[in-house]
Amino acid sequence: MISKQMQQEIKGSSAIRAMFLEGKELAGKVGAENVYDFSLGNPMTPVPEEFTEAILKAVQEESSLGLHGYMDNAGYPETRRAVAEDLNQRFGTDFTGEHIVMTVGAAGALNVVFKTLLDPGDEVLALAPYFGEYRSYAANHQGILREVKPHLPTFQPDLADLEGKITENTKVLLINNPVNPTGVIYPEETIKSMAAILQRKQEEYGHGIYMVSDEPYRELAYDGSQVPFLTKYYDNTFVTYSFSKSLSIPGERIGYIAACPRMEGCAEALQGLSVANRILGFVNAPSLMQKAVAASMGARTDVAYYDRNRQLIYGKLTELGFTCVKPQGAFYLFIKSPDPDEKSFVAAAKKHHILLVGGSSFSCPGYVRLAYCVSYEMIERSLPAFEKLAAEYQGQ
Amino acid sequence: MISKQMQQEIKGSSAIRAMFLEGKELAGKVGAENVYDFSLGNPMTPVPEEFTEAILKAVQEESSLGLHGYMDNAGYPETRRAVAEDLNQRFGTDFTGEHIVMTVGAAGALNVVFKTLLDPGDEVLALAPYFGEYRSYAANHQGILREVKPHLPTFQPDLADLEGKITENTKVLLINNPVNPTGVIYPEETIKSMAAILQRKQEEYGHGIYMVSDEPYRELAYDGSQVPFLTKYYDNTFVTYSFSKSLSIPGERIGYIAACPRMEGCAEALQGLSVANRILGFVNAPSLMQKAVAASMGARTDVAYYDRNRQLIYGKLTELGFTCVKPQGAFYLFIKSPDPDEKSFVAAAKKHHILLVGGSSFSCPGYVRLAYCVSYEMIERSLPAFEKLAAEYQGQ
Repeated sequence: MISKQMQQEIKGSSAIRAMFLEGKELAGKVGAENVYDFSLGNPMTPVPEEFTEAILKAVQEESSLGLHGYMDNAGYPETRRAVAEDLNQRFGTDFTGEHIVMTVGAAGALNVVFKTLLDPGDEVLALAPYFGEYRSYAANHQGILREVKPHLPTFQPDLADLEGKITENTKVLLINNPVNPTGVIYPEETIKSMAAILQRKQEEYGHGIYMVSDEPYRELAYDGSQVPFLTKYYDNTFVTYSFSKSLSIPGERIGYIAACPRMEGCAEALQGLSVANRILGFVNAPSLMQKAVAASMGARTDVAYYDRNRQLIYGKLTELGFTCVKPQGAFYLFIKSPDPDEKSFVAAAKKHHILLVGGSSFSCPGYVRLAYCVSYEMIERSLPAFEKLAAEYQGQ
Repeated sequence: MISKQMQQEIKGSSAIRAMFLEGKELAGKVGAENVYDFSLGNPMTPVPEEFTEAILKAVQEESSLGLHGYMDNAGYPETRRAVAEDLNQRFGTDFTGEHIVMTVGAAGALNVVFKTLLDPGDEVLALAPYFGEYRSYAANHQGILREVKPHLPTFQPDLADLEGKITENTKVLLINNPVNPTGVIYPEETIKSMAAILQRKQEEYGHGIYMVSDEPYRELAYDGSQVPFLTKYYDNTFVTYSFSKSLSIPGERIGYIAACPRMEGCAEALQGLSVANRILGFVNAPSLMQKAVAASMGARTDVAYYDRNRQLIYGKLTELGFTCVKPQGAFYLFIKSPDPDEKSFVAAAKKHHILLVGGSSFSCPGYVRLAYCVSYEMIERSLPAFEKLAAEYQGQ
């Protein structure tokens, strides 16, 4: 009775749900402390005190009607200004509040950008491997997602493949940086090369091709790695951000879009984002959360905790012979499956109570994703299980 | 550079924006206290104390990671249960938490339901006059909105027209109750008649036709009027709700979908809603707000305040000779324009610093909407202006 498209979407999503249920069942059988669940990208480092204080202060001191009421669909002017100033200070950009649209997280932001840009049949290029739901986001707005291959084993984008994949219908190059699921960061040089390709192709086809970034992991960068800020390299750029990871508040659905001031037709694009926010049913980003993030803009969760996890699990897995690009950001390892059929490897891991996600969910079979946004103690407890798992594949 | 569809949407929305800007300009010229802005459906009665207390208690007492973290895409189980129990107690229904999906307001809820139900070309019937954005909500999911005429001057639906408009492609009958912009409530008898028509047509065409309600104004009913709860009358029903008006918190974007347990394929539909919530980019309803509404489920803003406004403005305008159905719910009057061209009347009102919205925005030209969710004092101050406006049309 539901739509055919939704029946397909349900099939696609049932794998993740099945894993979740199996994990719960397993925990019931062997005890939660003996299940090593590395399947979910769910932050677990503390919510910064400043953010909590900002909520309390707003609720205690502001007029409740103003605090919980409608505002411009793009957000409170003071929140938009606070975001613009924060970006300008950190990246030397020149945003005003007008260039910022507050959104229901980065997933909401991407849908708002796609709604604004895509006509039916327009193509969105994604750099593989990528978060599987990007495909649905494009399809929501009748866009078509096309993949750009990575170079292996670095997982940097194959620029020749990118150039070859751009057609007359290409409207968007979607860039997730740092990358879920690999933890790779695309450096400045790569961004510059991609910008040059898009610039050439824009001129060739005579219409705009947009860079759209998805940056929920921006603040999770290790070893001093820099995550390039895209509007510095390319004018037709929308940066989307979520506070989910930097503040450990993914349930609150608060993020933003920053539109490059030098974008062609910027005023119309900003109007489009605002209208899209409304008609897609978001209307505006949650109001109290807009106040809270504005008042705790510089706050960060404990990024060093994730780094410590990263060192431990990356060190141990490579020592055990697993192959994996060393992550520079986010909180994932993308491990080459020692079995060509990654599903068998996921199943073998599960026998040792280790829960991983197959790379097929990221359009990259033959790999598995491990999310290390878990407690350090859980990683420590899991190491003997990884040793046993590795032993099964020794000599292969 | 933006999509053609969005260019159209911007055109459609620019009238409202223009009015907003003109209102601001006018306030700058003559002073805000001398502008009588009846154009926006923005609640202004107090946020209930219980709601504010619930936020503070949650932030002070709960683990911040749990409070702001991801949960099931359908929402926290305890919030879903609280909604189900509240509905069961008030309406004698038999929901469990499983039948409730928490959403980003009612606008989000409607988009989630449409995404779940609509295949390209499916038709959504709306009872005119209706909130103009319904057309965009249907179009977002490649559905087509068709209008059902009202009986005049009661603004109850023309049931013969409804029956005639149902085709093989009809998938949804959308029912807003109480109605924006008329303030009419569709009584039980009307709902039963519509249910009987849908039932017959379902059998005739051999596929489900769904009732989908939009009920942000449910708690704003006057003179003891009852708003029928749709799942009691028709199995294939989704009720969507927002706490925006009952708690005066429209900026927070918190609402829900209640799916009738007797719906055909209910389990699949619920899965669809959950997946739609995720892939449309909502992911889940804002988490702190889910906790806060669960802990203040019975709280209500000051509905009597709106009623007092209603009595004053309805009494005065009819006394002045304006024609208007007496509203039983919501906070709008839908006034027959004394000029056949309602735009001229809106312009004439503006000269007296009265801001109204033309009925064309609700697919019903020849009328204007007045939103009386304003201060009682503003209504009092505006009365001389209405007298002058009426005098211009005397004898016509």
